[in-house]
Amino acid sequence: MKQLLLLLLLAPCLLFAQSGTLKYVCPPCGPCDTIVYHKQGKCPHCGMVLMKKDTIDQKRLKVCFYLQDGVEVLDFAGPMEVFSYAGFEIFTVSKKKKLISQGVLKITPDYSLADAPPADILAVFGGNAGVAADDPEVIAWIKARDKATASYFSVCTGAFILGNAGLLNHQTATTFHQSINHLRERLPQTKVVENVRFVDNGRIITTAGISAGIDGALHLVGKLKGEEEAQRIAREMEYDKYVPNQGMITANK
Amino acid sequence: MKQLLLLLLLAPCLLFAQSGTLKYVCPPCGPCDTIVYHKQGKCPHCGMVLMKKDTIDQKRLKVCFYLQDGVEVLDFAGPMEVFSYAGFEIFTVSKKKKLISQGVLKITPDYSLADAPPADILAVFGGNAGVAADDPEVIAWIKARDKATASYFSVCTGAFILGNAGLLNHQTATTFHQSINHLRERLPQTKVVENVRFVDNGRIITTAGISAGIDGALHLVGKLKGEEEAQRIAREMEYDKYVPNQGMITANK
Repeated sequence: MKQLLLLLLLAPCLLFAQSGTLKYVCPPCGPCDTIVYHKQGKCPHCGMVLMKKDTIDQKRLKVCFYLQDGVEVLDFAGPMEVFSYAGFEIFTVSKKKKLISQGVLKITPDYSLADAPPADILAVFGGNAGVAADDPEVIAWIKARDKATASYFSVCTGAFILGNAGLLNHQTATTFHQSINHLRERLPQTKVVENVRFVDNGRIITTAGISAGIDGALHLVGKLKGEEEAQRIAREMEYDKYVPNQGMITANK
Repeated sequence: MKQLLLLLLLAPCLLFAQSGTLKYVCPPCGPCDTIVYHKQGKCPHCGMVLMKKDTIDQKRLKVCFYLQDGVEVLDFAGPMEVFSYAGFEIFTVSKKKKLISQGVLKITPDYSLADAPPADILAVFGGNAGVAADDPEVIAWIKARDKATASYFSVCTGAFILGNAGLLNHQTATTFHQSINHLRERLPQTKVVENVRFVDNGRIITTAGISAGIDGALHLVGKLKGEEEAQRIAREMEYDKYVPNQGMITANK
């Protein structure tokens, strides 16, 4: 009886505590996505109805950005912008503790090869891609994660990294325009095509050089979340030059 | 006589030493620009005839990228890619010793407000722009550098930073599409225009949101180095959607 009374007395506190731990965020739409609220309502920035943070977190796709020292800045920044607006959870990984992009930008990656968590999508990029593509440790790391990786995304000469991990065998792929012949020589079992913004093989998307990563990323978002979402993001980014499906979608899925 | 003999004996060494100190680089064209060679010839990567490094260094335009914590990744990465291909010397500055872009990318800036060297161009960007625009210390820093700054470049809500520094008074400007009205309210002495990729006032270029920074940067390169150079860079970046002069160029120079 005493226990019941205690429970009745504590009930409001327990309820309050439970309500106090609930966190709300706005559905993925832009920079306000990361603001955490402690009660229900509408996001004061975008006006959208807030959702429970847990629900959003569980649904968020995880994208691992592998960045090698010397990585081309727009190669990864375009997709990072697109995936961020799509509400994907992004983290960066590198073999190096510090790296420099484009000879300028000093970046500290979130994780090393040893402690990087799994991700739904592994994304790799060009700019000094050889240091990753020709590094047995990086290639072994990609292969070891393959079972837990749902899909792959490469920009520019990032295709060499996927290729050296054996992921492009019997696939169609593209790369930076100046590296088309080199990729053909390197990957005799891959059909390397030119003059396309991206090639979508189903599990693997490879894009052409540098800025083409934006189009490939929007295509991937369109596939995963619907073309309307890709177009919303393109509008937000003021990328009015976005043309849906402006790439090669192969039957090899 | 002894001195003359010594000089004759040493002459080959002196000549060799002089030749040994000369450094050669390839003319600005892409990632191979940063490779230093110690003899004349052609760049093995792009095939262009190498030039003396000193000559290139003296001619290189310096661009200061001011990056606030929370800066939008594509806002600065697009122009960084373009200016890098144009051979400009870029450095990053922030009030913070470490900053995070897009909630993800951990960046260490090259300089603080206290030790940043002068630059020909000051570039500012959106994404949490308020922390720079509303910071009296950052605004005072911009004003103090004004005499040594030849021109300004803003992307997205970076226009608020230039505006608060008084640089947009009696000028035409643009910004992120969702911030047009806000900029109009904030800067009553500025003609704020929408639906343009960029506005070029001569000394100041402001661009629309996020991806529009790429177009504004290509326009600036076209102005400074010729349209042919801008088109070469657009081709390198596989930005085949580049349309020259797709912005507003005012008479207010």
